[in-house]
Amino acid sequence: MFVIGLFPIAVRFGAICAPPMEFRPVLMIIGALTATLGCSMFLPALADALVGNPDWIVFVTAGLITTFLGAGTWAATFGKDRSLNARQAFFLTATIWIVLAFFGALPFYWADLQLSYTDAFFESMSGLTTTGATVITGLDNLPPGILLWRGLLEWFGGLGIIVMAVAVLPMLQIGGMQMFKAEAFDTPDKILPRAAQIASGMMSIYLFLTLVCAMAYWSAGMSLFDATVHAMTTVATGGFSTKDASIGGFDSAMIDYIAIIFMILGALPFLLFLRFFHADFKSIFQDSQVRAFLMTICAFVILAVGIQYISSVATGETALRHALFSVISVMTGTGYATTNYGAWGSQAVTLFFILTFIGGCAGSTSCGIKIFRFQVLFLNLKQHIREILYPSVVYVKRYNGAILTEDVSASVMSFAFLYIMAFMVLALLLSLTGLDPLTAFSGAATAISNVGPGLGETIGPAGNFSTLPEVSKWLLSAGMIVGRLEIFTVIVLFLPRFWRH
Amino acid sequence: MFVIGLFPIAVRFGAICAPPMEFRPVLMIIGALTATLGCSMFLPALADALVGNPDWIVFVTAGLITTFLGAGTWAATFGKDRSLNARQAFFLTATIWIVLAFFGALPFYWADLQLSYTDAFFESMSGLTTTGATVITGLDNLPPGILLWRGLLEWFGGLGIIVMAVAVLPMLQIGGMQMFKAEAFDTPDKILPRAAQIASGMMSIYLFLTLVCAMAYWSAGMSLFDATVHAMTTVATGGFSTKDASIGGFDSAMIDYIAIIFMILGALPFLLFLRFFHADFKSIFQDSQVRAFLMTICAFVILAVGIQYISSVATGETALRHALFSVISVMTGTGYATTNYGAWGSQAVTLFFILTFIGGCAGSTSCGIKIFRFQVLFLNLKQHIREILYPSVVYVKRYNGAILTEDVSASVMSFAFLYIMAFMVLALLLSLTGLDPLTAFSGAATAISNVGPGLGETIGPAGNFSTLPEVSKWLLSAGMIVGRLEIFTVIVLFLPRFWRH
Repeated sequence: MFVIGLFPIAVRFGAICAPPMEFRPVLMIIGALTATLGCSMFLPALADALVGNPDWIVFVTAGLITTFLGAGTWAATFGKDRSLNARQAFFLTATIWIVLAFFGALPFYWADLQLSYTDAFFESMSGLTTTGATVITGLDNLPPGILLWRGLLEWFGGLGIIVMAVAVLPMLQIGGMQMFKAEAFDTPDKILPRAAQIASGMMSIYLFLTLVCAMAYWSAGMSLFDATVHAMTTVATGGFSTKDASIGGFDSAMIDYIAIIFMILGALPFLLFLRFFHADFKSIFQDSQVRAFLMTICAFVILAVGIQYISSVATGETALRHALFSVISVMTGTGYATTNYGAWGSQAVTLFFILTFIGGCAGSTSCGIKIFRFQVLFLNLKQHIREILYPSVVYVKRYNGAILTEDVSASVMSFAFLYIMAFMVLALLLSLTGLDPLTAFSGAATAISNVGPGLGETIGPAGNFSTLPEVSKWLLSAGMIVGRLEIFTVIVLFLPRFWRH
Repeated sequence: MFVIGLFPIAVRFGAICAPPMEFRPVLMIIGALTATLGCSMFLPALADALVGNPDWIVFVTAGLITTFLGAGTWAATFGKDRSLNARQAFFLTATIWIVLAFFGALPFYWADLQLSYTDAFFESMSGLTTTGATVITGLDNLPPGILLWRGLLEWFGGLGIIVMAVAVLPMLQIGGMQMFKAEAFDTPDKILPRAAQIASGMMSIYLFLTLVCAMAYWSAGMSLFDATVHAMTTVATGGFSTKDASIGGFDSAMIDYIAIIFMILGALPFLLFLRFFHADFKSIFQDSQVRAFLMTICAFVILAVGIQYISSVATGETALRHALFSVISVMTGTGYATTNYGAWGSQAVTLFFILTFIGGCAGSTSCGIKIFRFQVLFLNLKQHIREILYPSVVYVKRYNGAILTEDVSASVMSFAFLYIMAFMVLALLLSLTGLDPLTAFSGAATAISNVGPGLGETIGPAGNFSTLPEVSKWLLSAGMIVGRLEIFTVIVLFLPRFWRH
């Protein structure tokens, strides 16, 4: 009854707000994806049932409700027209994450975790956006269902992000992503059919990387269950773990190195993997963004090793491994921890705060400002300085071999400005909810960049988000989705202009 | 002997580094300005002599050395050609502040203040860049000479900045300043003669405002000496005071309001004052930058009043006055304090950190990113969003009634990017010198934005920069000049490209 009762509301909502926007294809996709999420809840149900944990009932209930509501919406809006225009794509992109986070939160809310719905939603949104910030403590003693569900949320989130980055954002011209238009999708009016094509290619690679990563973890000594969950959250650069001590809890250098490798892979452009598997082996190493990404890692690792030496925290292989792991974990937005880098001294706090903003490559599961945007910003800066010095010389900017258009430059610069503004506003709002400055600033940064841990004692790598006020958690959840959707996608929906004609 | 010995070195230096750059006109101006600074040292000498303080000898000695070296350089390089090309203007702009800070530091170093040369240079640079960060404690008991010298340094610095902003930066196309080209200066090859013209107009207004401000302070109960020094540092939005407790030490609401008014006036575009005094009364109120500046103040004052109510620090007129004073003091980069706003709670720390970056209007004595740049960034953002939603519509950006060219937009965006990068790099370097994160971040921000106080216990409004390590002080001094010269002016000099051809 409840299920069927919802539809007229949804449809009427569409009819009132924006007569010209056709909501049916949008709702159809939302329905299909919600149903998929619902079906996936039977996996943790199975895991719990196998060990005899009563939580399996929670997952089955949540799974049934989610699947029925999703499938019902899909059936009620089913139609042959599956193409979306730009406005529909904006609306879908922003809505789908909220809807999925809402349903994904149900198992956390109903299971025996003592979580408020705020906490449950925060955990679910943190998973889907591959942030990896958690409000749950005592992970080591949790039943497998909840742990698997956290892994699955990040895994689906990561997949969704790649598809979005390759198939949706370039069409919507978000933050310079139009540079990465795959040739296959040239018509902005027909986003869906091609997106499905590319999505299947991406999905195969994503699945393949996850399997290889799981096997590597398993052979390095993790249990099959831990290996599976960690593989899902590593490739998604998500960062949820099955232990309170994160990857550090396994105390294995081999596991650390495996995580290092797969976090890097998760932060590389997935389109290049597609080419790699089509025997174009060179392109991944010739890509200017990949090179800059690896060089940035090197620079920060050297600094992080130096800081450990200065503070006498660690030396030799340990210092190098901790530096590699922590720098890559924060820069790619994974958020695993092997050590409390916040305790390396005040220099480390500053270093990791700056790292929070950087991010990985475009078209990967990582978040942040991203390497290619820094490259574009530097190219613009270089051009500007040339123009100041030699006003009469015309200079053509090139990125990765292609001409960098003014259009892309302007998009990237607007993005960077909006990113910093969003960070500042969120930090201000968080501090108005009573958080201390370090928690407010690093919390805002870690949410918008989808990293996971912040800095300081409360939300640092050794801490947890559970003790924050409820309103701070809602603000952080909003920050995660805004950052994940590259800011514009969300902001556009709040413009009256978007809803007119 | 010593004096004369220096000249061949200076001339030879020029000849070796860059054969095609003609250093004579640059050195001539540096010499003339250095001699002027030297002459002005006789004023504090007089002040000390009047009260019988032996420091008058220090000022006379420093004054003689500075005047002779300056006048000697001027005489040795004197020539009829007084026009500068762009490269000479860049070189002059960056060099003059360092040279003047070097000589301005001598009285601090030689007087009985127990300062190292690092401290003396920091204080001098802080004055000339109108930052207002101090390493001197016990101001209330200092002889008048030193106090007057600090005021004079800020006053000269403020004047230099206005002339630079109106006459030099627009020619060099720094950070969008080309928007503010006064019609009188259209040929970038002939900077000096026109600069001198405008400079005299600006100087009259600057002097007039300072006199009115001094009279206001005096009539509100300050001594004539305190009124003079504070008038100089208010109009310059500098922030040096004659008391450790800053303006708060006078404990007078009337004095607070006078400071509020003149800090605002110091942060308005001085070209508009010129028009105002030429009977164009409306233009100052119709200017889009001025309006945005006043609205920004209002928004932050409301927040600051709210924070005081939440933290139960103050209510009513006191809360409003402290909010007005502190917000305007930080936003304009003055840096006076009437109350330790750092103690209003963690919300205030975040608020004032954000305020540090904003700044006043272009062509004023204030620093920071500046209001017009935020306006340009918002205009670009608006255009970008329009283009995303309606790709086929062509939209012309207008700022203050005129068309905003792509050239200006690109300059402003490059500036904003470089500003944030410079801030991040300085914060990282400062934390590598051992400062805690809050001190490192707020120190970097306050130096680059030439505000004065940072946040936290050490360098907050109730603190002082004296206890920082020497190397941190040099970094902060570098940050002050980089921020004051709008970053590009300094960076350009480090490019090999600048010195070629």
